[in-house]
Amino acid sequence: MSRADRFLRALRGEPVDTTPIWIMRQAGRYLPEYRATRERAGDFLTLCKTPELACEVTMQPIERLGVDAAILFSDILIPIEKMGVPLTFAEGEGPRLEPVRSDAGIALLRVPDVEAELPYVLEGIRLVRRALDGKVPLIGFAGAPFTLLTYVVEGQTGKAFTETKKLLFGAPASAHRLLRKITDTTIAYLSAQIRAGAQVVQLFDSWVGQLAPEDFREFAAPYVKECIDRLKPLGAPIIYFANDGASLLKDAATLGADALGVDWRVPLDEARARTGGQVTLQGNLDPCVLFAPIPVIERRAADVLARAGRDRHVFNLGHGIQPPTPPEHAEALVEIVHRLGKR
Amino acid sequence: MSRADRFLRALRGEPVDTTPIWIMRQAGRYLPEYRATRERAGDFLTLCKTPELACEVTMQPIERLGVDAAILFSDILIPIEKMGVPLTFAEGEGPRLEPVRSDAGIALLRVPDVEAELPYVLEGIRLVRRALDGKVPLIGFAGAPFTLLTYVVEGQTGKAFTETKKLLFGAPASAHRLLRKITDTTIAYLSAQIRAGAQVVQLFDSWVGQLAPEDFREFAAPYVKECIDRLKPLGAPIIYFANDGASLLKDAATLGADALGVDWRVPLDEARARTGGQVTLQGNLDPCVLFAPIPVIERRAADVLARAGRDRHVFNLGHGIQPPTPPEHAEALVEIVHRLGKR
Repeated sequence: MSRADRFLRALRGEPVDTTPIWIMRQAGRYLPEYRATRERAGDFLTLCKTPELACEVTMQPIERLGVDAAILFSDILIPIEKMGVPLTFAEGEGPRLEPVRSDAGIALLRVPDVEAELPYVLEGIRLVRRALDGKVPLIGFAGAPFTLLTYVVEGQTGKAFTETKKLLFGAPASAHRLLRKITDTTIAYLSAQIRAGAQVVQLFDSWVGQLAPEDFREFAAPYVKECIDRLKPLGAPIIYFANDGASLLKDAATLGADALGVDWRVPLDEARARTGGQVTLQGNLDPCVLFAPIPVIERRAADVLARAGRDRHVFNLGHGIQPPTPPEHAEALVEIVHRLGKR
Repeated sequence: MSRADRFLRALRGEPVDTTPIWIMRQAGRYLPEYRATRERAGDFLTLCKTPELACEVTMQPIERLGVDAAILFSDILIPIEKMGVPLTFAEGEGPRLEPVRSDAGIALLRVPDVEAELPYVLEGIRLVRRALDGKVPLIGFAGAPFTLLTYVVEGQTGKAFTETKKLLFGAPASAHRLLRKITDTTIAYLSAQIRAGAQVVQLFDSWVGQLAPEDFREFAAPYVKECIDRLKPLGAPIIYFANDGASLLKDAATLGADALGVDWRVPLDEARARTGGQVTLQGNLDPCVLFAPIPVIERRAADVLARAGRDRHVFNLGHGIQPPTPPEHAEALVEIVHRLGKR
């Protein structure tokens, strides 16, 4: 047992030498070397679409932090652009898309040919696998269908999600048509990532916490389940992260994922009680705890480890690491988890 | 039993003729008559600070919707300005404050003399009580201490709440000093509202859902409890709304509030199970369900009523009514709740 396999073993519920850890957005703005590469790239989308640069930033935290998994640097909206929704990132403003809300607009969207239209993502995966050389596994990822729908419909990161909910509650058949196309795209996209070398995939449902459980069961869960059912035969473990999903955890545990991401709002012992114990839990330190002095980080990490128990746990933050985080605090967290998690 | 007392009776756990309902932000932008008064006022803060205008918009939904309570039109940041934090509202941008993050800045904040410095709020309450003439009770309100802290520290509506959490996790003693002053202000502010005629008060903890339960217990719950303990002797029932607080409900139920607001994420039967049944629950239809056709609204409202059970329930949305809501859908909701809720 070693660094190379503890993440995969924890996902499969097998014994590990210590608790594996990776960090959402571990390749990101809190790292000066990331900011340097980003500067060279010029803009965010160029960074995502240039395999050499994406590989470079993906690799940056691997040695520096000592994490047990790499995750391809990319953005969940990358495949959406190829469905026919023009996408830009204004500096410091987040994504802007031309919103699609009408049946006519939805009818025009298409399921892209991933190999032909998103070759840079697959090439990025191949480059990272080569660079990793078996050191740690590589995670591929996609947005979950409901979350991608919010971007398509809102045209940006939602606030009150009124356009999304106008569609869901006012024209549910249209919402389902849109979710159908997004789901087909997501399945094709993740299948191609696995074929290119992604050893694990994570579905990020960043905005699903906006849904009441009843609406989760109608507009989110069936599509996540379909992704999982279709990807399972390819053999890569699947992680589903329903952000802000305290009320959705029990349902989420029935969708067939190998692991569930849990944000910092639900203590992992409670999450374990609600999810039954047959699924690995991934999380869940509040990312902002990394602003605290290292002894506080250690106390809080120890609490997460104690609540998670020894089996079926992958340590992570409960959300992406924040740009103002001191990199040495992220390094300290990895050291702490490996030390305290030792079996 | 009648419209005049069913809200207060439900808060006290007494039998009612039908389920009472009011709607968060019932005096708001979805109403053309509100937009007209707002236009006349010129800007948002003037509307809040002019008792005659605040009274006018407070009264607008009372007859139109047939709700069972009025809530004074104001903003949770009004008392913060008088603590010494300059406040503006840029059109369509939300509040902007001069952020206070340092010990020196916190030391300069003061607890305002409510009668002398916020007379327009108290005069607004007196005007509304006169205009209501006993038709329905009047709710006063304040932001809960943690939520007000986020505005003081962020200087605006938070997104990732990184400045807030830098303070909480990096300088907890400073956070507690700030919470101390905000709590003293909130107690003075709500006491004065009750003395001026508010018959019920609600504490809005809009951003408390950003906290893990452990941090809720340190930085939010004790101050809410202190507000409740100090206000209880004045006799007005107290409602505590911990927005996005699925994981906090159980703790929130121990703070002594007569009622807990519940957002739409937690079905009320689950909320009831977690809160024990000795507290009234207020909520919790997703506000965006009001975008749907009326038969859908009826089906969803019936579900909320069924889950809530017959006792200790005040119907409300799970969050403020959204500006794009058709007013006639809000009217329909009130009619539906009164009809289906009939004992």
